[in-house]
Parts: sequence; C-alpha cells; structure tokens
Amino acid sequence: MADLTFELIAEDKFSKARAGVVTTDHGVIETPIFMPVGTIGSVKAVTQQQLLNDVKAQIILGNTYHLYLRPGIEILEAAGGLHRFNGWHKPILTDSGGFQVFSLAAQRKITEEGALFRSHIDGSKHMFSPERVMDIQRSIGADIIMAFDECPPYPSTYDYAYNSMNLTHRWLDRCFKRLDETAPKYGYTQNLFPIVQGSTYKDLRKASAEYIASKNSTGVAIGGLSVGEPPEMMYEYCAFTCEHLPWNKPRYLMGVGTPWDLLENISYGVDMFDCVMPTRNGRNAMLFTSKGVINIDNKKWEKDFSPIDDAIGCEVSSYYSKAYLRHLFKAKEILGLQIASIHNLAFYLHLIKEARKKIQEGTFNSWKNEMIPILKSKA
Amino acid sequence: MADLTFELIAEDKFSKARAGVVTTDHGVIETPIFMPVGTIGSVKAVTQQQLLNDVKAQIILGNTYHLYLRPGIEILEAAGGLHRFNGWHKPILTDSGGFQVFSLAAQRKITEEGALFRSHIDGSKHMFSPERVMDIQRSIGADIIMAFDECPPYPSTYDYAYNSMNLTHRWLDRCFKRLDETAPKYGYTQNLFPIVQGSTYKDLRKASAEYIASKNSTGVAIGGLSVGEPPEMMYEYCAFTCEHLPWNKPRYLMGVGTPWDLLENISYGVDMFDCVMPTRNGRNAMLFTSKGVINIDNKKWEKDFSPIDDAIGCEVSSYYSKAYLRHLFKAKEILGLQIASIHNLAFYLHLIKEARKKIQEGTFNSWKNEMIPILKSKA
Repeated sequence: MADLTFELIAEDKFSKARAGVVTTDHGVIETPIFMPVGTIGSVKAVTQQQLLNDVKAQIILGNTYHLYLRPGIEILEAAGGLHRFNGWHKPILTDSGGFQVFSLAAQRKITEEGALFRSHIDGSKHMFSPERVMDIQRSIGADIIMAFDECPPYPSTYDYAYNSMNLTHRWLDRCFKRLDETAPKYGYTQNLFPIVQGSTYKDLRKASAEYIASKNSTGVAIGGLSVGEPPEMMYEYCAFTCEHLPWNKPRYLMGVGTPWDLLENISYGVDMFDCVMPTRNGRNAMLFTSKGVINIDNKKWEKDFSPIDDAIGCEVSSYYSKAYLRHLFKAKEILGLQIASIHNLAFYLHLIKEARKKIQEGTFNSWKNEMIPILKSKA
Repeated sequence: MADLTFELIAEDKFSKARAGVVTTDHGVIETPIFMPVGTIGSVKAVTQQQLLNDVKAQIILGNTYHLYLRPGIEILEAAGGLHRFNGWHKPILTDSGGFQVFSLAAQRKITEEGALFRSHIDGSKHMFSPERVMDIQRSIGADIIMAFDECPPYPSTYDYAYNSMNLTHRWLDRCFKRLDETAPKYGYTQNLFPIVQGSTYKDLRKASAEYIASKNSTGVAIGGLSVGEPPEMMYEYCAFTCEHLPWNKPRYLMGVGTPWDLLENISYGVDMFDCVMPTRNGRNAMLFTSKGVINIDNKKWEKDFSPIDDAIGCEVSSYYSKAYLRHLFKAKEILGLQIASIHNLAFYLHLIKEARKKIQEGTFNSWKNEMIPILKSKA
C-alpha cells in the first residue's frame, strides 16, 4: 500500500511533451496514456481479455455516477470493489460524478452543500456532496479518484466561472478532508486528483492551477475543456493551464479527444487522457486508422478485402477486412460493434505508445506534425 | 480436394450413440458435434477468435437465405468465399434457405419450379429453385451444403406431408444434377447432404429416409422436426428416422435444440446438431450451465460472486461472476450479450465433447440419464 508515484523518464526538447511511469498499487502505467472508458463497469462491447490482449489497455475508467446508480454501492462493496467485481486487475480511475450530474441527470440543483439530482434511469432523488462522493469512490475502490467539481458550460460568463471555480475549490478542501478521515476499504491506496477549472478565463485558470498545485496531490487534472469550445481554444487553454501546474506530477486532461487532440495536448505536457470517442464513434461506424479516418458504412469498402489496419499490431484489426466489417454494420451484427470498438481503442493505445517512443527518441515534435494531417485525413 | 469422409470410432452398447470423425477439406470434426449458427456470416456477439479459443467450435453454420441477401453473392465471390470473407478457416455448413423462405420471407409462393419470395429486408422479389440454391451455395463455398427442401409445418395433414415430401425428393434430384454439372469455385470439395422429410407420419419418414439413403451421399440430414411438435414426438420421429438411415454416414438433425435434446438424440444415433438457442437464449439472459438453467436477470444472483460456470474449461465462463453478468444485463451493456453467448456455446461444445468421451468409454447411456435432470433443473 503506497501513494501513487510519478517518474519522468524523458522530456522532449522541442515541446513540453514528457514520458513517464505512474506506479499504483495495481501496477504501473506508462505515460502518456489513454484510458478506455468503462462507464458502468464495462468498456462497451469489449471483454476484459480483449482489453488486455488486443487493446493493450493499462488503466481504465469507471463513472461514479453510473456505478452508484447501477449496480450500486452495496453490491460493489459486497464484491470487494470494482476490480474484483469486473475482473479488471490493473489500475482503475473513477471520475467524481459531477460531470454526469450536470449532463445526464433529469433535474439537479447545486448548492454549497452539493448537487441534488434525479436519476436518469428511474427519476429517484439523490444528493452528491464532496463527502458523499468520496465515500462512494471509497466503495468503488479505484486507484485514482477525482475531486467533486462543478464543470461550467462553454461559454460561461466571467462571474459564473469565477463563482463556480471557487465552489470547486471549497469542495476540493472538503474532499481532501473526508479522504483523510476515512480509510481505503480494500487494502490499497486511493489517490485523489484535484481538478483545475476556470472556464476560458486565463486569470481564473492560473488561480485554479495554483490552488490545485498548492494541495501537493499525487496527480492533477484539467477539467472544463472539450465542452463545446473550438479545438484551438481547447489547445490554448490546456497549454496555458499546463504551464501553471507542477512539472513533477502526472496531468490528466479530462474527456479529450480525437487522435490529433491527444498528440497536440501531449506536446503541452499532458500525460493522461480519457474519452468515449473511440468506442462511441466506433459503434457508429467511424474508425480511426493509421491512414486516416474511415466511415466503414461507406460503399467504397464493399469489396475492400484488405485488413482494417495492419500497422498497429492488433490481431483483431489485422484479421478482419474492411469489407467484412462493413457487412457486419450493414447487417446490424453485434460483432461489428465489437470489432470497431476493439480496433479504435487499440489504435488509440498504439498511437500513444508511439508518441511515448518518439519522446524518448527525441523526435516527438516533428513526428507529431507529420502525423496530424494523416490522422485527420479521410482514408 | 476430397469428398467428406466419416469414420466411426466408437459405438455405445446400450443406445445407438456413436462417436466418429468427419474429415473435410477444411479439417476434421469430431462427432457428435454441435455447430454454432453464424446466420449472416457471424456467430452473433462472438468473435472468430473467441469461437476458436473459448467456445472451441469445430464447424459453424451460415444461412444461405441471409447471406444471399446480405452481403450478396457478388461480394462473397469477390472475397473468395465465406471462409475468406469472415476469416473462419475451419469447416462451414450452409443450409439451403428453404426454411427461411418459409419462415422469414414477406411473401412466398411454392411451385414445382421453386419458391418465389420477397426479401424481409427490402421487399425485393427473388426466386429460389434447387438449381439456383446450388449455385448460391457454390458461391458461398461451404464444405457441407444442404439440399433445397420444403419443411412442412407441424401439424400437417397426411396429404400435405406426402406431396411436400415428394416435391422435396424431386428437388433433391435437381440439386444433385446441378451440383454434378458445376464445379466448386474455390478449390475444395462441397458435399451435398439430402434432407429427410415426411412430417409426423412414419410411413412417409421411412420412405423419405430410404429415398435419401439411395442417393449414397457423404452425409444425411433429418429435417422437419423441432418445428412445434412436443419434444417426445420429436424424439420418437428422430429415433424412427435414424433406424432407416445408413449407419456409416454422418446424420445431422437440423435445428435442435436444448442440451437435453442433444443428449437424447445422440442416443438415437444423431451425429451433428445446430441451433440458435445457445446464442438467442443467451442474449435473453438464459444460461445453460453444468448445474442447470439460470435466468441471470434474477435478483437471486445479485451478490453471487461465484463464476458463471467453472466446470466447463472455458476461460470466459470461469472468469466472470454471476453477479457481474447480471449487472451487465440490468445495465443493458453489450458485454453481457457477449459473455452469455460465449458461455452458452462453450457449454454446448463442452457437453457434446463429454458425450463423445462417454461413448468412447462405454458409459454414455447411464451418464445421459444422470445428466438430463441436472441439465433441465433450475439452478
């Protein structure tokens, strides 16, 4: 049982990109890393065996809001935590549920105390406070747990963003306090990552980053981006925020993004990413490949019997042809969703592993600039 | 390139059960065997890798009607046949489409020539004749292909069954003729299995079995059972039909059935089975296990963290708990469909492998009588 550690092993000379190793009680994570999203305790359409062997995931996410509603804390505790419940024995990170309360819940009311909301499943009433969310995340038992925050929408007025940021900071103090007062339930350490907010106001972002830095947590997160602002603005605010965060802590940019978003933000010094895009877009026939973006529904692939992508070292991507995958989508076969999800995730993990290698080799920045147009192109 | 062969390696002293080896150009099949159904070129919710490694399938089915409509013959031919299209390189069997025309198509009209029908997908008009169906199965390229037949409903009048049987026999002659006149498209042998019909009339069943036997094909099939008649009647007519079929040819009982149906019919001398039940019922939360039938939706499993079934040598069945699988079904996660489908198929393949072993050991009949009540029980 030990706190999460972060070792920087390489830094790019031509950008702020870094390669590192995060160590948790459930094993190591080589950064930069992409974390597949396992919302309700399952990465949609992918088995845990496929996550390990085909996707080569090192850490996955769970969503506190969803897991709290289903299967619920009682069952997760009886199982001995999420790792034992779903059989994923490598690191897990859970978000705080804040984002889902604001985006999914049927009704919600925010007060100093927390957020009152109704379940999107059955309309039942629930209260999330910083203390409650820490308790829930204790019961879920992730290795990395997130502070309860308010994520202001884009655009937000300065006043809204200012007040929201301060509320998030007060909630953060309550999160740390609650965590100090409670013990992990399953014999391993849970690490709280605070979240920088401040919307698209640089003075607020700076103030928030400095407040978060002052907490001396084992890692930090950047929230409130990728919520509807243009990509260039996301890049600008991410880069700016990174400058005000401690160099020696892993930085997690929440909810980002496309393959090119990953490379851009790595160049600003981001170490960890999560996004539903590879699985959600995969289920909608959109594939990310080493030759660009593919809409596998397109008639163009009808007789293309070449592999989906044989350049990423994934058995599934090199085994099945584009024509077969297109057929599965046309025929609405579940196997299509599985193959597309595995491929997209394997592609993300491959890309980020390549990025790490380039950082270590000192060629990241030029490689990134070459790769982005290819990744964005329509294959 | 060689005709299918069948070697009998053991015969039960206390029943008609037999163990054998079927050899095709795509490899061997140890009988008795269960064949997972891959209707549209994919066994629903199961990857080809999982079919090989977890389910341990030796041969899978494709449906001519579905494959003809989607992806269509042109794409299958361009791919070089179904094996290359879907990446399943072991034996494949295709049905003739007859059953689907009568059960799925929007409208159909049967004449001496064949069956005119409308697609259930887009309402387009199509004609299946014995010749057309042989041509389509040449293009799909299965190792075992089925004769085009009419499957009379249960119950049928004697006259209907009599006329239908004779039509099926005339169609059979046309199937063999067409096959003789055409060559395989992909360099390996395709073996035509004729189908015994005759509904629930013993004189017709006997006449049909004798007609089919006279064709001296490499294997034979029993159709027109498991179409709504009581199980005891299915058993009776299957046993009766088997008595009139050649001993030295593999016998395929079409569309059967539950795990206990498999064991009963093995005892009458059936060698091959197919059924959508393990996958379809799996997708509806019904599991077949070594301890009986489980409705995984049931609240009873909410906190049962024991493996789904650790007695069948399937990594998936022993890895995931009942409580986790129940959660996946409750949360409508695709992974639930995958795990249930893999488990049920692995269970069928395990059970039939056990049956084979018992036949070889000479203990099949008593084992079967012990197993059936366990298999049928509610776990």
